[in-house]
Amino acid sequence: MTDNTILIKDALILNPLDFKEIKGSLLIKNDKIAEIGTDIDESNVDKVIDAKGKILLPGFVNTHTHLSMTLFRGLADDLSLDSWLNDNIWPMEANLTSEYCYIGALLGAIELIKSGTTTFSDMYFYMEDVAKAVEESGIRAVLSYGMIDFGDDEKREHEIKENIALFEKCNGMADGRIKVFFGPHSPYTASKDLLEDVRWLANEYNTGIHIHVSETQKEINDSLEAHDLRPFEYLDSIGFLGPDVVAAHSVWLSHNEIEIIKRNNVKISHNPCSNMKLASGIAPIQDLITNDICVGIGTDGASSNNNLDLIEELRTASLLQKVNLLNPKALTSNEALAMGTIKGAEVLGLEQEIGSIEVGKKADLILIDTNNANMVPDSSATSSNIIYSANGYNVDTTICDGKILMENRKLTTLDEEEIYKKARKAIEELKEASK
Amino acid sequence: MTDNTILIKDALILNPLDFKEIKGSLLIKNDKIAEIGTDIDESNVDKVIDAKGKILLPGFVNTHTHLSMTLFRGLADDLSLDSWLNDNIWPMEANLTSEYCYIGALLGAIELIKSGTTTFSDMYFYMEDVAKAVEESGIRAVLSYGMIDFGDDEKREHEIKENIALFEKCNGMADGRIKVFFGPHSPYTASKDLLEDVRWLANEYNTGIHIHVSETQKEINDSLEAHDLRPFEYLDSIGFLGPDVVAAHSVWLSHNEIEIIKRNNVKISHNPCSNMKLASGIAPIQDLITNDICVGIGTDGASSNNNLDLIEELRTASLLQKVNLLNPKALTSNEALAMGTIKGAEVLGLEQEIGSIEVGKKADLILIDTNNANMVPDSSATSSNIIYSANGYNVDTTICDGKILMENRKLTTLDEEEIYKKARKAIEELKEASK
Repeated sequence: MTDNTILIKDALILNPLDFKEIKGSLLIKNDKIAEIGTDIDESNVDKVIDAKGKILLPGFVNTHTHLSMTLFRGLADDLSLDSWLNDNIWPMEANLTSEYCYIGALLGAIELIKSGTTTFSDMYFYMEDVAKAVEESGIRAVLSYGMIDFGDDEKREHEIKENIALFEKCNGMADGRIKVFFGPHSPYTASKDLLEDVRWLANEYNTGIHIHVSETQKEINDSLEAHDLRPFEYLDSIGFLGPDVVAAHSVWLSHNEIEIIKRNNVKISHNPCSNMKLASGIAPIQDLITNDICVGIGTDGASSNNNLDLIEELRTASLLQKVNLLNPKALTSNEALAMGTIKGAEVLGLEQEIGSIEVGKKADLILIDTNNANMVPDSSATSSNIIYSANGYNVDTTICDGKILMENRKLTTLDEEEIYKKARKAIEELKEASK
Repeated sequence: MTDNTILIKDALILNPLDFKEIKGSLLIKNDKIAEIGTDIDESNVDKVIDAKGKILLPGFVNTHTHLSMTLFRGLADDLSLDSWLNDNIWPMEANLTSEYCYIGALLGAIELIKSGTTTFSDMYFYMEDVAKAVEESGIRAVLSYGMIDFGDDEKREHEIKENIALFEKCNGMADGRIKVFFGPHSPYTASKDLLEDVRWLANEYNTGIHIHVSETQKEINDSLEAHDLRPFEYLDSIGFLGPDVVAAHSVWLSHNEIEIIKRNNVKISHNPCSNMKLASGIAPIQDLITNDICVGIGTDGASSNNNLDLIEELRTASLLQKVNLLNPKALTSNEALAMGTIKGAEVLGLEQEIGSIEVGKKADLILIDTNNANMVPDSSATSSNIIYSANGYNVDTTICDGKILMENRKLTTLDEEEIYKKARKAIEELKEASK
């Protein structure tokens, strides 16, 4: 088999490992970065992308999503969490089908690709259909089935079976672009038995765990009432925590919990827009980073965000830390950009494969076009121009696993109009069904 | 003279006066909205814009900017306010010329038009050059000269002369699209004499006042030290306040100051991104609105934002109030959209002319294309889809004073490439000069 090669020529290469800015070119051979330099021979290259005036970055890593929920974008806003869930989201979810989740995932995949995200970590239902959408769209994903048992033995058995089936069917699928994690929903919806089973299974299957922890004050109070322990203290007490655990949200943390997170090398997925929109609270991200805890960024589902634009999410993360700490030096643009790339990769245990621009790593890359009103002039730190000025629309090329998924903002793998139509129809049907 | 007519056909019309959503068409005759309906005769219309699948809104109103500072985008970030100003912004401003301010204003005008803003309120230097940029770009503006005297009589005289000259030269310019306000920079940079003179002049010229008030905690402390009064208390004590005063920022407010603002019907310009980025603080916007105080939105200069996207600014405003009050119902999408349109118009005293979609008002209108990944599906409140999901790139048409300034994202009045080139050159020269 001959190699498939793409040369990205004359880009401003920004590597979030060291933030050095290099003007140069990058050669992709099949799924990997083969060469980085200023003098790459282009005579035998299959395709040349002129990247003059563009920033070359690793694709963004979204560490916490519910992609199929993109269908529920704008379904219900400006509501208390209770009313949002009970009166709006759950009645809709009761009518979800495998087809709806597939369409929702395709819709979300379009938005991810168009805003420069090449890897996302998802937890939801009908995950085999999400896997199908991942396979077709060409994106990379870590998938987990959201397990909820509320202490019911039969339910627990069913949930575990589902996640194992997902692992066995989908882990390594799509040329290895799909990894499967275990997804116990949270310490308050998953019983101690389920959490312990998951811990054992993750070891057994040598994979990670994706869980929601400490999203709201109510959750803390309930945990204190139920266990006399805060959520991370409880999870620590049952031996659940470890470096393979990704805890989404982690908003309300005591000093002791930060110690626990650090000691166990737990990974954190920060979701600022969702935490703001649902009024959950402000996570102590600068504190976590200062404590050398690995923090990635996540959008959560589009229904509580309400978009999947990772640049906006990173900007919000930075601005929120600054104002909350009354410290303009908090969460710098470099720290934010790392959070959206290499740190996100580390959160998902993929730091050897993705998240930075290095020879031998997967060619998960994006180009940002700075020749746009909101990015001119690009006078200083490039990370600042991305984090503080740009948004997802400035991404003009998205490459994942060495394949071009978007070029000049045109998708190559998905039919936008067709999927928009299906998504609109799906939500209308779901609204009708849940009346 | 024959009338110039444009028919915007089959739009989803969202009027921020009542938030009713009407599917219909709108006829522009010259500079005004002439008719709104479902059955407008298009046979004699000069131009028809097909607005199917698009939302028709009033153009956004940005109530606090320093447009020429768009040149300084990304110049210096993640710094303390002191270092940002002293080491970075002021040395650059020392080398500003009329030409640089003109280029910066043109660059900013491109960004405003491309993100759907049709009116901005500016305070800076070389304002006649900003006026020139306004005239050429076709946008609407309220301009004021930033007066600073630090108690120096000679300087005060000079500053007042400058602002009066600006008024006499530019008020009513550009077919009436330009209004001139007085712009005393702040209660700590403008002396009591200057503030009193400005109060008298604003009455005399029957125009408004644009001023920064209570941006940082330091300002409050300094005011208490200097006057034994907080900033709004001090301004009230010298009879400065009134319904024609637009106070930008207004972050740190006591209950008494909120009472003072309300009693004097002072208008507030809220600048959440700048307040977050510079770590100034969180303004009590929901409190102000609950007190029936008129609040508009502003981006501040691009150098502390770092973009001029008003949709992002409104989203940030809403999310920040929610998380700060731990109340997901705070600053709803309707309230935010009003803040960006009709309330902004009221802040600037232009509510009879712009800010809503009504027959007889100026045709300052934008179209938002919902057929984009980040806005599909549009299943619920349209204001939610705009505030929580969209960004400036979803605006595809911008009309001001009945003239199309952008159609299908192509500008009609300004040469983007040329202005980008000039802006890049200008900042390089300025950096060189301030070395």
